[in-house]
Order: sequence, then structure tokens, then C-alpha cells
Amino acid sequence: MTDKQLAAVLHADWKARPDYQPTQLEIATRRATYASRVWHNPRVIVEEIPIPEIGPKDVLVKLKACGICGSDMHLYESDKDGYILYPGLVKTPVVLGHELSGQVERVGSDVSGLKPGDMVACEEMWWCGECDPCRTGYLNQCINLMEMGFTDNGGCEQYMSIHHKFCWKINDFKKIFKTEDGIYEAGSLVEPACVAYNAMFVRAEGFKPGSSVVVWGAGPIGLGAIALAKAAGAGKIIAFEPRKKRAELAKAVGADDVFDQYELVKPGPQPWRRF
Amino acid sequence: MTDKQLAAVLHADWKARPDYQPTQLEIATRRATYASRVWHNPRVIVEEIPIPEIGPKDVLVKLKACGICGSDMHLYESDKDGYILYPGLVKTPVVLGHELSGQVERVGSDVSGLKPGDMVACEEMWWCGECDPCRTGYLNQCINLMEMGFTDNGGCEQYMSIHHKFCWKINDFKKIFKTEDGIYEAGSLVEPACVAYNAMFVRAEGFKPGSSVVVWGAGPIGLGAIALAKAAGAGKIIAFEPRKKRAELAKAVGADDVFDQYELVKPGPQPWRRF
Amino acid sequence: MTDKQLAAVLHADWKARPDYQPTQLEIATRRATYASRVWHNPRVIVEEIPIPEIGPKDVLVKLKACGICGSDMHLYESDKDGYILYPGLVKTPVVLGHELSGQVERVGSDVSGLKPGDMVACEEMWWCGECDPCRTGYLNQCINLMEMGFTDNGGCEQYMSIHHKFCWKINDFKKIFKTEDGIYEAGSLVEPACVAYNAMFVRAEGFKPGSSVVVWGAGPIGLGAIALAKAAGAGKIIAFEPRKKRAELAKAVGADDVFDQYELVKPGPQPWRRF
Amino acid sequence: MTDKQLAAVLHADWKARPDYQPTQLEIATRRATYASRVWHNPRVIVEEIPIPEIGPKDVLVKLKACGICGSDMHLYESDKDGYILYPGLVKTPVVLGHELSGQVERVGSDVSGLKPGDMVACEEMWWCGECDPCRTGYLNQCINLMEMGFTDNGGCEQYMSIHHKFCWKINDFKKIFKTEDGIYEAGSLVEPACVAYNAMFVRAEGFKPGSSVVVWGAGPIGLGAIALAKAAGAGKIIAFEPRKKRAELAKAVGADDVFDQYELVKPGPQPWRRF
Repeated sequence: MTDKQLAAVLHADWKARPDYQPTQLEIATRRATYASRVWHNPRVIVEEIPIPEIGPKDVLVKLKACGICGSDMHLYESDKDGYILYPGLVKTPVVLGHELSGQVERVGSDVSGLKPGDMVACEEMWWCGECDPCRTGYLNQCINLMEMGFTDNGGCEQYMSIHHKFCWKINDFKKIFKTEDGIYEAGSLVEPACVAYNAMFVRAEGFKPGSSVVVWGAGPIGLGAIALAKAAGAGKIIAFEPRKKRAELAKAVGADDVFDQYELVKPGPQPWRRF
Repeated sequence: MTDKQLAAVLHADWKARPDYQPTQLEIATRRATYASRVWHNPRVIVEEIPIPEIGPKDVLVKLKACGICGSDMHLYESDKDGYILYPGLVKTPVVLGHELSGQVERVGSDVSGLKPGDMVACEEMWWCGECDPCRTGYLNQCINLMEMGFTDNGGCEQYMSIHHKFCWKINDFKKIFKTEDGIYEAGSLVEPACVAYNAMFVRAEGFKPGSSVVVWGAGPIGLGAIALAKAAGAGKIIAFEPRKKRAELAKAVGADDVFDQYELVKPGPQPWRRF
Repeated sequence: MTDKQLAAVLHADWKARPDYQPTQLEIATRRATYASRVWHNPRVIVEEIPIPEIGPKDVLVKLKACGICGSDMHLYESDKDGYILYPGLVKTPVVLGHELSGQVERVGSDVSGLKPGDMVACEEMWWCGECDPCRTGYLNQCINLMEMGFTDNGGCEQYMSIHHKFCWKINDFKKIFKTEDGIYEAGSLVEPACVAYNAMFVRAEGFKPGSSVVVWGAGPIGLGAIALAKAAGAGKIIAFEPRKKRAELAKAVGADDVFDQYELVKPGPQPWRRF
Repeated sequence: MTDKQLAAVLHADWKARPDYQPTQLEIATRRATYASRVWHNPRVIVEEIPIPEIGPKDVLVKLKACGICGSDMHLYESDKDGYILYPGLVKTPVVLGHELSGQVERVGSDVSGLKPGDMVACEEMWWCGECDPCRTGYLNQCINLMEMGFTDNGGCEQYMSIHHKFCWKINDFKKIFKTEDGIYEAGSLVEPACVAYNAMFVRAEGFKPGSSVVVWGAGPIGLGAIALAKAAGAGKIIAFEPRKKRAELAKAVGADDVFDQYELVKPGPQPWRRF
């Protein structure tokens, strides 16, 4: 193993919009709270960067699979004024990718729950665990939040350094998926599926088994929601999705019925559209 | 007691909009599912009507106080084509009023939990208790729903007949309110306060004591929400309300801070308005 | 159809224990709140009784399957003084059986959601829907509770009369079970399975999908709990059950591991038994 | 400030019961998982110990108030064989005390949310925040748990070192309590009150405002439960408590009715005791 690796790195120029005055903290850290107000002229460059060092509580993950999120697209795209479309927290340069899985290559001296060879999926939100939101259980409201693939290097590289507490073992996926590719591809879907899980079962506190569940939109998150509703004992799952391919996927992962909302609302007297 | 009484009765003409075809059930029952599609030329007339008979499970309530809801206004108002503004379930003629309290005058032969003299507040939604939504606890989704003051005679009369199961005793209000007027006025606020209660503690499943609670809008329902949040142990209550009088009431019933959302969003660079 | 049928009827003698004074209500209604204090010398007799009349909201159910609950055994068994073992609400004579399914034979004039030929399973607790516990959603705390097979005739007869609101259609079981016997046997398991469902998902408010679930005891209710936990997305299900046959059933319906709690606690130093 | 302080230190002898074989981990760490199996001849000695150093994430707290818990008594008491009564996790020697409050004296270099002079109450359970139970929100199930006053020095000293994440500011208590003593005494009640809070509102998921709440036992935790139920909008609070003094306190903090359960169950026919 050399000490260099290839990575897809997002670069952009710090150039605040005329009507926006970055805070001192933003300037000092080069972390824009709202990327679209500051980061200009984004470009993604595949380049050679160092393989990262790891600290005593970190893990070096050899990356195996990484999804491309709509947010990744918005980091790459710009508006007519040349500003990044993505509105959230971003620091550049940064290695893209937050829907990822990989294999543990090496662990720090204080890591006991993981060992080289373990298969892992990783959390995108790097929470401190010590601030008020963290201490009261709202990890995604962490006031010291770092975001993998947004403020710190993510999955579009060969080796990533990450605190062990953000790694979740997926060794058991071997029981379900037959090939290593299958395992790691499924692993890279853990993060988007967890977006749906968090919404359905944490924030909304779930549903009673046997309930009917409606999912609006069968994109990657919606498909995850359908599959999760099925796994959690939904009695009937109804999805709304206009694209034929996605509608078919919705049925494949568990929807009982899929409707095209635009077909339901054709021109003409539409009583329920009156509001 | 004579057999006649005065009542404020909503009348309107059944005249479906050109682009709406009422269902057979609507025509047979004169109950429009969406009042604004069918009921034309609304007018409220104070007239003499019979004091109602009561069935074995009913209660005759001598009305003491009745609020006027925004919905009552929308029943009275019409659009440029002459249709009622209120969009929900309505049958006419009907005595208006669903925020009410009164005193039990007489009870049917099968009523055991109430007796003449009891002070009561009443449910607006008259659920059957036997359909699937009712049996699974979603009383306000009852498929046989009747609505007091919308499909059946409500509080703007002198005596109302109502099934005993929709009456809740408020005799204990005597411990808090010193005058009969005070008791019954508070009683007439039970229904709107329950709208807030149901939203906060039933549908949204409440909050942990000590939590911060935000209430958007300090109208009658919002004020109820603030008072309920206070009673339920909210740590801090923040309200948004542009009208000065209502903002003061919000503070009076428990809000720690009240902001005018329109003041917060003045012209000029408004970072958080960018989304 | 003649007007007579065969039924297994529980008879017993009203003979209060020396240290128990029945209430006036118990005497007037012959309903003992605690059967074991009053009912003496129980015996079950198969005899001819009339096929019941049905009221306007009732359904006549032709019974197809009926389970025998531990409570049924306790109604039949007596202690050394000759009193019924079962401690709850009982009126005799009464037709036994509350885990049942059947086919709708005839419906009353006010029943619209069921028709002859429908397959149904029935609720054991006949709640009034009008008392305070019922109105606040605690149907099994109904103060006017009647109990099928305990205070009113249940499933060990050929035709049963029951209010339509206690009947739940199981026509869709045809999609899963291939024979009529299979459908109705599954139907008779709905009641005991709902005991587990209510405990797990209503009173205890359920678990997050993926959680580990522990079930103590794999009798009929425990087996239902295991199957329900599996259907609701439990990650791992651990059961404790000393009997080999039941342990095997536990695995068959979804338990990942089954332990014999008595094997775990053998004689000798048992640290965790110290408490 | 010298570098010495006085402390009440629990000492005991490591002497496993004949029928208990400590694990290698227990021996290596001198942390007994079940104190009553290993720790012999407990004695509390007031002695001079060093004022602790603090690490970069620690806070040095000048202690102001410390309650004595029943557990503290059980650490001091021994059974007939001379073993500590307390059954949980203990390492000795250790400074007793886990119901405490104090003032921040000094903070480590990485502490930003606290500053000298802040008033704080502290968590007893020192959770790692990185193990599986911690990551899934069950902090009190932490597999690396340390316990203030049990495995690490607690409140019966003059200065305590503690990770900042276990400190909660109580500066706002100044608004309620008029004297410094009052503030810190209230602060020392935060820990036992949180035992009740966690049970009622986290594990049991709370109650709807207006509900009746029953509290069994009006000791320090029970009194906290009553006060919390009151603050959270309980409609009626019923307590069971045989001691007159505690029954009076129960009423003083919010119980509507207090019963002596032993009075309720006097000799003679007691129908409901039959089970």
C-alpha cells in the first residue's frame, strides 16, 4: 500500500454573494453554512491525494461502493450566477460521497469493536456526542456537526478515515447477499434507507403493524420507505409515482398499489382539487 | 316550557355548480360532502322551531353559551358566484353552532351517567362507534359522521337534543370559575381547545415535559395550544403572531416569547429566506 | 334450519363463599364480578337450546371453529371447596367459547357492512362505546362490559347472535389459507393473537423495526407474540420456554433462539439469581 | 487553593465469596460487577486526598451539595457475612456521592459550553457515547459505563473532576430559589428527580395531559414522580404511602389523594386480595 490514492474532489471558490456577509466562523473555518451563498464555480477533479492518517479512535476504511445522491449532483451543479446549487453545510476541497460501504483496513489504538476485514456502512452525520442536542438524543441537530462528503472527505476515494462510532458492521449481509459486490452495494444503500427509517420510525414514531402506509414519490428514499414499511408489517402500501420505471420498482420492493398522481388530476372538473 | 323555541337557522338552496355532479347519496340525504359545490345563497334566519324530542339515549341540553367559529362565518359567507365558502359536510336547514355548553334539562330513558342540572360541553363530531375507523379509534374519520351545527342542529338555539355519549360533564368547572357565566363560557371553549389537544397530544403524540414548544398563530386554536403546552409542562413556549392584541393574549396564556413573523422577514438580505 | 341447536353450556350454582357478600348488582344480574367467589359446582352440559333471535344491529353467525382457552378450562375446573377456578366476570348458564370464527348467516335490519356468507372472527369483549373508558379509547375497561363466552353465549354452539361491531371480516384469509377449515381455524386464532397484539403494540406502544424482542413463554399467546414480532420487523426474537414441543413451535413461527429458563438456572452458584 | 482536599472515601477488601469466581476483567480492573459478591468489610473514612487533575474535556467542580441515597447506605452497610449490601457495579476506594451540585472552578482546554462560576448538576452514569447501546440512545446500557460515586470519585469531596458532557447548567435556578443554598440543594435533587423522569417520560413514554397518575411509594423518587406528574399536567395524582410524614410531603408536592396501602388491606374478608 502506497501512501497515495485517487479521489474525486470537489473544488470551488470562496466568493460570497453580494448580498451575503459570511460570519467570522464561516471565514475562519471555510465552512459555509449555506453553500449556495458562498461557493462559486464548482468542479469535481479526480486527483491524487494522500491516504489519510488515522487517530486512536479512527478506522481506515477501504472503500468498496459509493452511491451518488441528488445532493452530490447539486454540489456539482451551479446556478446562472455560478453558485453551487446545494444549500447546506459545505467546506471545500472535499472528497465527495456519503452513501458508502467498505472494508476495515486498519483501526486506531483505542478501537475495540472493529477489526481489519470487517465490512461496514458509515453514518454521514458526524455528531460530537457532547453538545446539548446530542446529549438529549437529537444527533442530527449536533451543533458541532461534521458531514462526510460535505465538510470532510467521503466515499469517492480509495481509503477513508472515520471515527469508529460512525461505522456499523454489515458482516451479516453475507447471509443475504451472495457476492461481495452485492454485499457492498447493499451496504451503500444503508445511508439513504436510514433517511427513510429515521423519518418513519424515529421522528414520526412509526405505525401499528397492519396499518396502511402511503409513500409519496418512489425515488431512492421513497423506495427505501416502501421496503421498510413492508418489513415493519404494513398491511397495505400505496405509492404515488409518475415515472413508469420507478413505479415498477415500487411494486418490486413491496407497494401493493402505485398511482400516477398527475393522471389522477387531469384537466376538467376535479372536485378534490378545489382546495 | 312551551314546545317552541328560537333558533338561528342556516338556509341555503341546493344548486350544484355546473361542473359538479352530486352523488346519489348526496341527493338522497341533502348532505353535501363539499358544501361549497352545492349550497347556494346562504342566509341565517332567526326563527321559531320546535323544541326537539329526545330518544332513549339522548339528552335535552338547555344551551348557555355558544362560540362563533371561523367555520360559522364561512357558512354564512358566499363567493362571487353565490356559493357557501365553507367546504365541508353540510345539510340545510340547520341550526348553527358547535362550540357550546349548557345544562342538562332532561335525559332519555337509557341514559344513566347524566342527570338534569349537570353542566356539559359537547362533541361536535357525532361518530357512530361501529364503523371500521371508529372501531380502530379514529372517531373523527367515522364513515357515518354527523356534525353538530353542520348536518344536525347545534348550539344557536335554546334546547338541543344530543346523544349522551357526546356530552362531557363540566360540573367541576365550578371549582375554578366563580360565576355561572364564567363556567359556561369556559365550557364553550372546550371544543376549540380540544382541536389543539387532539393535534398536539393525540395525533402528534405530545412532547416531553421541559421541551420547547413553538405555536404558529395565536388565534383561538393557537391560544388553546399555548395554554395546553403550558399545562403540559413545556419548558419554553414561543409563538408567532403578527396582531398585537393576539400577541398579548398569547403571553397572557403562557407564551414566553411572541414574534411577528412578518417583522422578522423584512425586505433586504434575509439569509434564511433564501429557501 | 330448525329453531333448535346443540351447545356446550356451563352451569354452576350461585353460592357465595362464607366470607364474601355479593353486591346488589351481582345478585340482581347474576353476574359475579369474581366468579371464584360465588359460582359453585361448575359442570358443562351439551344440550339443546334455541337458536337466538337477532336484533336490528346483530348478526347471526354460523360457527365454524372455536378454540379452548386456558380460561375455559378454569371455568370448568373447581378448587377443593368446589368453586370455579376462573376469577373474572361470569354469569351462568352460558355457552362457552370466545376464540371463534364463523360465517354470517343473517344480518339485522340496521347492519350494512356485513352480508350472509361473509367470514368473520369476533371480539370477546363487548364494549358499550358510550361510557367514559370507551369514549377515551380504553374499550377493555368498559364499565358496561359483556364478555362473549363468560356472561353471554359464545362459540360452543351452532349459531351465535352478536352485535355487528364485534365482527371483523376475514374473507381475505382465502388468499392465504387453501381450505375452508384452514381459514376458519386461523380465524379462531385471531382473538388470542389480538391479546398479544394489544399488549405489544397498543399498551406497550411497540418496538422499532430491527429491535431484539424477548418473549417469555411460548404458549398460544406467546406464540402469537413471536409471530407478530416477526411480522412487525423484529431483528432478533428470543423466547424462553421449557417444553420441547412448544420450543419447536416457537422456532417454527419465528423465534431465532429458544432457551429453557430452568436449564439456565441449575443448582449451584448462580450469580444472577442472587437477586 | 492547595492541592489537597477532604473526602469521604469508601474502602473495602477484595474477597470474593466462596461460591463466586470473579471474571478476569473484574480482577484486572478491581471493578466488581456485583459488589455484594466481592467487596468485604466496607468502611467510610474521611481522609485527605489530592484535588484531581482535569483533562482537556473535563471540568473541575467545587462541590456545594450532595444527597445521601439509599444506595450510599447500602454501600456502607454489610450483611452477616460482612459483604457490602449494594449489589451493583463498584470499585474501591472511591469517594461516595452521586446526587450532587456544585460550581465550575476550572475547565479543560477543549471545553466550550461551561465556564468558571457556572452552577451545575451532574449525571451519575458516565456513558461512553461510542458503544452500540449509546449509539442507539440507551445511554444507561453503555457497555463501558462508569458510575460517579461507585466506580469513580463522586460528590463527598471538595473538588470533583468530571467530563463536561455530564454537567448540566442550573444557573437558571436563580430565578426560582432565592439563596445559594437553596439553588444547590435543589441542584442535588436533579439526579434523583431524573430517575423518576426517565421512568415516566422516556421508558414509559409519558401520559396524556389530564390523565390520572398513580405513584406507589412517596420516598425521594416517588416524591419526584408526583411533582413531575403535576408539572406535566396530570389531572389527578393518587399516591400510596404508609408513613405519615411522607404522605404529607406527597400532598405538598402535588398528590390529590394519598392512601396507606396497609390500611386498605386490613385483616378480614378482602375480596381483592384473593389474587
